[in-house]
Amino acid sequence: MRDSDIKINGNELHGLVSELYPICRSITGDGVRQSLKLLGKWVDLRLHEVPTGTKVFDWEIPKEWNIRNAYIKNSRGEKVVDFQKSSLHVVNYSIGVKQTMRLADLRKHLFTLPEKPDWIPYRTSYYNETWGFCLSQRQLDALPDGEYEVMIDSTLEPGHLTYGEFRIQGETDDEVLISCHSCHPALCNDNLSGMVAAAALAQYLAPTALHYSYRFVWAPGTIGSIAWLALNEPVWPRIKHGLVLSCVGDPGTFTYKRSRRTNAEIDRAVEHVLRRSGKKFELLDFSPLGYDERQYCSPGIDLPMGCFMRTPNGKYPQYHTSADNLDFITAPALAESLDMLLSVVRAIERNERFQNLNPKCEPQLGRRGLYHRVGGTNNSRNEEAMLWVLNLSDGDHSLLDIAERSKLDINELFEASQTLMQHGLLRKMPRH
Amino acid sequence: MRDSDIKINGNELHGLVSELYPICRSITGDGVRQSLKLLGKWVDLRLHEVPTGTKVFDWEIPKEWNIRNAYIKNSRGEKVVDFQKSSLHVVNYSIGVKQTMRLADLRKHLFTLPEKPDWIPYRTSYYNETWGFCLSQRQLDALPDGEYEVMIDSTLEPGHLTYGEFRIQGETDDEVLISCHSCHPALCNDNLSGMVAAAALAQYLAPTALHYSYRFVWAPGTIGSIAWLALNEPVWPRIKHGLVLSCVGDPGTFTYKRSRRTNAEIDRAVEHVLRRSGKKFELLDFSPLGYDERQYCSPGIDLPMGCFMRTPNGKYPQYHTSADNLDFITAPALAESLDMLLSVVRAIERNERFQNLNPKCEPQLGRRGLYHRVGGTNNSRNEEAMLWVLNLSDGDHSLLDIAERSKLDINELFEASQTLMQHGLLRKMPRH
Amino acid sequence: MRDSDIKINGNELHGLVSELYPICRSITGDGVRQSLKLLGKWVDLRLHEVPTGTKVFDWEIPKEWNIRNAYIKNSRGEKVVDFQKSSLHVVNYSIGVKQTMRLADLRKHLFTLPEKPDWIPYRTSYYNETWGFCLSQRQLDALPDGEYEVMIDSTLEPGHLTYGEFRIQGETDDEVLISCHSCHPALCNDNLSGMVAAAALAQYLAPTALHYSYRFVWAPGTIGSIAWLALNEPVWPRIKHGLVLSCVGDPGTFTYKRSRRTNAEIDRAVEHVLRRSGKKFELLDFSPLGYDERQYCSPGIDLPMGCFMRTPNGKYPQYHTSADNLDFITAPALAESLDMLLSVVRAIERNERFQNLNPKCEPQLGRRGLYHRVGGTNNSRNEEAMLWVLNLSDGDHSLLDIAERSKLDINELFEASQTLMQHGLLRKMPRH
Repeated sequence: MRDSDIKINGNELHGLVSELYPICRSITGDGVRQSLKLLGKWVDLRLHEVPTGTKVFDWEIPKEWNIRNAYIKNSRGEKVVDFQKSSLHVVNYSIGVKQTMRLADLRKHLFTLPEKPDWIPYRTSYYNETWGFCLSQRQLDALPDGEYEVMIDSTLEPGHLTYGEFRIQGETDDEVLISCHSCHPALCNDNLSGMVAAAALAQYLAPTALHYSYRFVWAPGTIGSIAWLALNEPVWPRIKHGLVLSCVGDPGTFTYKRSRRTNAEIDRAVEHVLRRSGKKFELLDFSPLGYDERQYCSPGIDLPMGCFMRTPNGKYPQYHTSADNLDFITAPALAESLDMLLSVVRAIERNERFQNLNPKCEPQLGRRGLYHRVGGTNNSRNEEAMLWVLNLSDGDHSLLDIAERSKLDINELFEASQTLMQHGLLRKMPRH
Repeated sequence: MRDSDIKINGNELHGLVSELYPICRSITGDGVRQSLKLLGKWVDLRLHEVPTGTKVFDWEIPKEWNIRNAYIKNSRGEKVVDFQKSSLHVVNYSIGVKQTMRLADLRKHLFTLPEKPDWIPYRTSYYNETWGFCLSQRQLDALPDGEYEVMIDSTLEPGHLTYGEFRIQGETDDEVLISCHSCHPALCNDNLSGMVAAAALAQYLAPTALHYSYRFVWAPGTIGSIAWLALNEPVWPRIKHGLVLSCVGDPGTFTYKRSRRTNAEIDRAVEHVLRRSGKKFELLDFSPLGYDERQYCSPGIDLPMGCFMRTPNGKYPQYHTSADNLDFITAPALAESLDMLLSVVRAIERNERFQNLNPKCEPQLGRRGLYHRVGGTNNSRNEEAMLWVLNLSDGDHSLLDIAERSKLDINELFEASQTLMQHGLLRKMPRH
Repeated sequence: MRDSDIKINGNELHGLVSELYPICRSITGDGVRQSLKLLGKWVDLRLHEVPTGTKVFDWEIPKEWNIRNAYIKNSRGEKVVDFQKSSLHVVNYSIGVKQTMRLADLRKHLFTLPEKPDWIPYRTSYYNETWGFCLSQRQLDALPDGEYEVMIDSTLEPGHLTYGEFRIQGETDDEVLISCHSCHPALCNDNLSGMVAAAALAQYLAPTALHYSYRFVWAPGTIGSIAWLALNEPVWPRIKHGLVLSCVGDPGTFTYKRSRRTNAEIDRAVEHVLRRSGKKFELLDFSPLGYDERQYCSPGIDLPMGCFMRTPNGKYPQYHTSADNLDFITAPALAESLDMLLSVVRAIERNERFQNLNPKCEPQLGRRGLYHRVGGTNNSRNEEAMLWVLNLSDGDHSLLDIAERSKLDINELFEASQTLMQHGLLRKMPRH
């Protein structure tokens, strides 16, 4: 993979989020299909349909949920809560209902956020046949006692769980897996940002010469990654690195949550890139809470996959509320996240090991025109990089190892290694 | 071992110390026997008698010392130093003497603490046939020149070294060894506190269902633990964990001195318990100075035994003086120490390893009624604990490993593991 | 090696630097020979001559450079730059020239330090047939336009590269290598200080009973150490420890740059000595930039050699300028450096492993007259040292290991080990 002059256009990323925003997604249903088809503008992904009832490890694919309309009307026939205004108003996976009831009885089906009276919470009832509405505390407070008509026009029937997949063949069948959850409805950072960033990354990488093959998966949280894992067990051993993408659109600090292995190559590569970026960042240890790394890093699978985020889930007040909207995420933040991801890909692509073919003392770089300093002055950075690569290319150290020890950038070391190879001073070793 | 509602009564502990306080102990003699018999109120310990002259590794059991009376009288026949007032007044192991001498000659047999003029120091002459008196600097200063009558009615004759032992049989013959030195006379923190804490711990554990067997040893410092080790070599390999108890009655900061192995399971268990307690504590590295861990951790024995203390030996001014008295130790401090020891026992008892029987992806906890959260909200602590146990129960990690990594309490993890076992999601592995 | 009452005379060291200062050294030539012969006053070193054209790994011994005179004269015949005043005035390895030229043309052969207008820079053109002059910015500024006569009376002809070597035979053929670069002309800290310190160290060690053999090499930077390594490949495996000496005359903070192996015995020994010295010091990680450790630590050689300095190359403004002169280095700093080096030698000489012959419990030191404390008081430092040596002499730990763990000085532990050996409690183990 070459250095690139890719101009990342944050506005395009934000624009695609805007198109996806109004669609009501869930872990199954037409909203997911429609969303994945929209991503198809950027990347030629394939939709996979897993039938209801399919056993996937300890789980079973649930019935497919589709919703057409929902509202609460007051006694004057006015819609006081309207699904058409926000898909968050309905508890996701609510069963159909049509009845009239007193506010006192309705209340146990209503969810609000009293501490954020203008925001609508996001709630789900996936494995629980029930129904409910989410609304702002102010909306609730404004409702007088009396009778209300409650209507949810939804179906929960045998159907399919849908996920999207896109694969780029590299030089080797060893894979890098990029996964994001695609089930959340009108929430921008969590996770339209991740869905769109994955699509953009795929679009950038598709035409590029790559060492690894890259596989992108857009699947509903938990059940989707479980389904993908259950259906792709032969692929597991080929996955050498992976990232779960989520919450990459807000302008907060970059956050990387390490894989269960703690110090896998992907963990070290992301840390190196973040450290070299000059940007603020935070590193979190693995925990079995969070996104689909819970499944990818379960003990019987244990893939080397971390989770790449900006502000993590639960650490911003807008999390899982209607305030995680198109204003919360920004075009520059999306562009910067994508840029960081491209740097991570570049780092793992370039993390080669070399063998110094002249390992006893330094080779005479000056004779080869590689050493330009005037005797008595300091080395240039490029000379430094060559000396580090020569000194540590003993077969044990990869460029990332050398970068960590030298505090130089892997890209500087990569350039140096290319020069040294051209002069016959270095030999590339097989990747392990 | 279950969680317990044990009400630890510090006053009872302090009361037992008070009964032991007036008895003159030493490394041998009737004072030791009398003290161990008093402990017999709480625990059915057995007295072992090792005859004078017995070879114990590089050492030999010394003659038995018994003292009946001792004083210094002035020329008017008044007792100016009186053993009946404090057993500290006589240098421990002093041979018998009865003579009249001038103050100038007597002085080389007198020990004081000039910097603490009201305190009597504690001195011994175990392997050195000599005699002496300890007194306060003020007492000494008040003595006019002249003749003094010196009398020590003691005997140093072939006899025995006495130690006490109590053993609780657990499920396994693997043992936890609790050892404390029982040789110090009228010193409360060092080590009546340790002697009484060991007895109380034994009393609490005796009726409990335990995985490990527990052995308690009350033996004189150095020669006593050496004798015990020499006579119990076949027991060594069964000792999986151990603690030396000393100085556990003062209200100072908890202090744990690690075993020679530095990071043995007992070291990690004590650290975990102290860290979770919310109390201040200090961790010391092993050194071959201190209490009987010197012997237990000698290079040819190297048991995994640390030393559990509050303020360590030599780090409080009252150390080895008459000020280490019944006022220096407190009932609440004794109770808190015992409570901490019970928590340590609980931690090592519960430090099981489990195997996740559903290791590929998470099991569906909701279906089993184990996952109560409303979709979209945070996990409860109990759910967190279950997810951690599931994720790391790969056969390699014990609950203590998981506790260290998750920053959760081993007891929370233990509860979670019991729930998961009940649901067939976890299998207990054999202890190693 | 015994403790010594060596009185290190810094004035003698400074005096020898003064004698060497006026000689024009380079990587070859008579200046080197003359300098090494001066060192012969202190140490019976042998000069080795390697002929021009000899292949040494990837390099070839260059032609020999000798210079007799050089100047720039103005149109009035006055010498405005004069090699006789400072050997730095000529770019080292300049080819001969004699011509008249205008200042404008001359300028591209002139080197100054505009930011330090009174200082002459040090420049070289070793592998580049060209010529040049170095002068202060003030000198240059004072030159009016016009014609100048330029004269360098130098030769670059087949000859030899000269290095000096001195070896002390110890008990074993295992060697400690002390190397310093001998090519710099009128620069005192870099590296007349190192050359003279090596000679003084050799002088001190020569009459001493030593475990290791010691080899001292004075060789031109880079090409000299490469030549030595190429010609001494059979010696490599015998080198157990080594130091490159440089910049040891300035009064700055001690600095030790670790070997490529990071934690070799020499690295730990130097760190221990510096830490115990009570002086300020800094530890640097290895990098393949700097002095001849670049060659000694190249990946196919990888000797355990660090670089011992005070202020490192490039970290003081006088570096590679005429201000690195006889005033910049001081007699006390030179003496202190030599003293530290002797302590390092003592530490590696004394870093024995012992076996405790009484490994089960402590031996009874009191019976052997080794334990002098009054019962009830603290141990003396010597008792502490004995207890540490006994506890950790299990065959795995060397005295340096014990020093690191106990925080005691290796010399205290060594004394303790000697006492314990005399009492039959310890056995010396073969060095590995």
